[in-house]
Amino acid sequence: MVRNQTIKFKNKPVIIGSYSIVGPKEGQGNFGPFFNYVMKSDSFGEKTYEKAERKMVQHAIIGAIEDAKIKPSDVELLLSGDLLNQIISSSYAARDFNFAYLGLFGACSTMAESLAIGASLIDGGQFNHLVCSTSSHFSTAERQFRFPLELGNQRPPTSQWTVTGSGACVLAKKGKGPRISMVTFGRVVDYGVNDVNDMGAAMAPAAMDTLLAHFRDSNTTPDDYDLIVTGDLGKLGSEILIDLMEDQGIKLGLNYNDCGQMYYTREQATLSGGSGCGCSATVLNSFIMKKLRAGEYKRVLFAPTGALLSTTATQQGDTIPGVCHAVVIEGEEK
Amino acid sequence: MVRNQTIKFKNKPVIIGSYSIVGPKEGQGNFGPFFNYVMKSDSFGEKTYEKAERKMVQHAIIGAIEDAKIKPSDVELLLSGDLLNQIISSSYAARDFNFAYLGLFGACSTMAESLAIGASLIDGGQFNHLVCSTSSHFSTAERQFRFPLELGNQRPPTSQWTVTGSGACVLAKKGKGPRISMVTFGRVVDYGVNDVNDMGAAMAPAAMDTLLAHFRDSNTTPDDYDLIVTGDLGKLGSEILIDLMEDQGIKLGLNYNDCGQMYYTREQATLSGGSGCGCSATVLNSFIMKKLRAGEYKRVLFAPTGALLSTTATQQGDTIPGVCHAVVIEGEEK
Repeated sequence: MVRNQTIKFKNKPVIIGSYSIVGPKEGQGNFGPFFNYVMKSDSFGEKTYEKAERKMVQHAIIGAIEDAKIKPSDVELLLSGDLLNQIISSSYAARDFNFAYLGLFGACSTMAESLAIGASLIDGGQFNHLVCSTSSHFSTAERQFRFPLELGNQRPPTSQWTVTGSGACVLAKKGKGPRISMVTFGRVVDYGVNDVNDMGAAMAPAAMDTLLAHFRDSNTTPDDYDLIVTGDLGKLGSEILIDLMEDQGIKLGLNYNDCGQMYYTREQATLSGGSGCGCSATVLNSFIMKKLRAGEYKRVLFAPTGALLSTTATQQGDTIPGVCHAVVIEGEEK
Repeated sequence: MVRNQTIKFKNKPVIIGSYSIVGPKEGQGNFGPFFNYVMKSDSFGEKTYEKAERKMVQHAIIGAIEDAKIKPSDVELLLSGDLLNQIISSSYAARDFNFAYLGLFGACSTMAESLAIGASLIDGGQFNHLVCSTSSHFSTAERQFRFPLELGNQRPPTSQWTVTGSGACVLAKKGKGPRISMVTFGRVVDYGVNDVNDMGAAMAPAAMDTLLAHFRDSNTTPDDYDLIVTGDLGKLGSEILIDLMEDQGIKLGLNYNDCGQMYYTREQATLSGGSGCGCSATVLNSFIMKKLRAGEYKRVLFAPTGALLSTTATQQGDTIPGVCHAVVIEGEEK
């Protein structure tokens, strides 16, 4: 049975403020000029990378609230998640704020998950102002999911580079800014990929599943969007997605791209591109938001994917399930 | 500034079905006769405890849908989370269902977090049927958070026993059953406790914070509820909560109790009581739901807490933040 996965908002929530903070390597990447803040060092003055990551989250939340020109006391709710076990970056960051907190886990789809839930809560009339945020950090992700950096392991060509960065935005019932008009909630999809160094291949089927649901439910085609952007499929994964969609009779054209694929320059040698929750979150809350605010983009389909594995699942022989949530953001009218 | 953390629903979502599944030890506990299914063994026919935990989640979801007398194809969304790294119990369970999935992390407050978000989405008119679920498993939690079982460590008197169990329920726009009338979204609270064997003490301040917000926002008092129930503060933590509330001028009387404290019999020697996401989830979706359906409880305040730590945070000297979300459930009228 085909069921509707897409919500069209009657009261389109407004993104009234946004902020992005990244590490030095990310600052030298393709989106460098668009980020609000580039850290001088990955440790951000903290003793551990984990503490640096949560400090980035706090920085992004405060930055988004300032950009929205509201008071912190106007914010009612924070929706946040990250890649670390028990999402400590988000929860410990939330400790220093006075607003209510909902912890989420959607792996690298988290920015879209927080926007999808947040926009639904604003549309439903339950909240007036809330903050959506997420983060990732190369060094915390490497040591949790792969190997200690000191080991100096070689990286296979399909591997991606976890973005050190955090993005946040403020959703409001009223105000000036780009508006969220629809969200498509994704299903968990597993095509049986078990190579933890090839996340793009594992997640591409989830992106396909959600994009198909979105086009079907919303009665739109890829041509209706100025930009269709996935999160961190990387070079390989985004090619797989294009193939999968073509098999389904839908051609993703030049208006399709992937944040991970675009993130770093060729010289930065990150192999298949950027990844991590911070990858799509920092691109959305810098480059994409700027173009939406300027009216250059009229309609963006933001569809980051998440790989829902853990080291324990992998060690027990499990394959890698993926999920993808899609958010339609409309630019400011000029 | 005091801000409102409580949503009063105009269209009170109905809990049209619920289900609880537990391990053998839990089946011998005080709620034994009320659970839908007691497993013969903690491994539930699986090769690992992690796979057993996700099978429990699937079992609970299917059970709740059957109890609701709807078809699986009527369900639009699953909201689920658990204690395992990257919430694999929920995500891998979701893989076998066709509905959209939102992964949550609120530690042992997850049942309330899923109900709070789910009820808001139903009230807002975005969904008609959704499932909320969570789980925990003694053996997966011990090896992830503490020590391998084979080590045979002694447990200090403040320690609690992670419940092996999963609970799920179906929320609907219309139908017959108990109704969710309000939710209070909690803040992250940290009073500086750093003893990982004394979670009750770490989480009690979060319970206080949310209960105070709830009574203030809803203009109710403890006397307005037939039952006020926290999740897994345990014997010690619930006494701390009673003290903390009394300091704030609010007396929690005989209508207050804690699922963890009530869970096991004295002979089962679990020291400070039960814990884990499955603790409050299985009590809610068995004993409490039965009393609500029978009209014996007219109004229940369900307020489980979560400890938002990870082993990494503890190893880096962090204290333990807590969160508590509160849900008001009204019984069926007779």
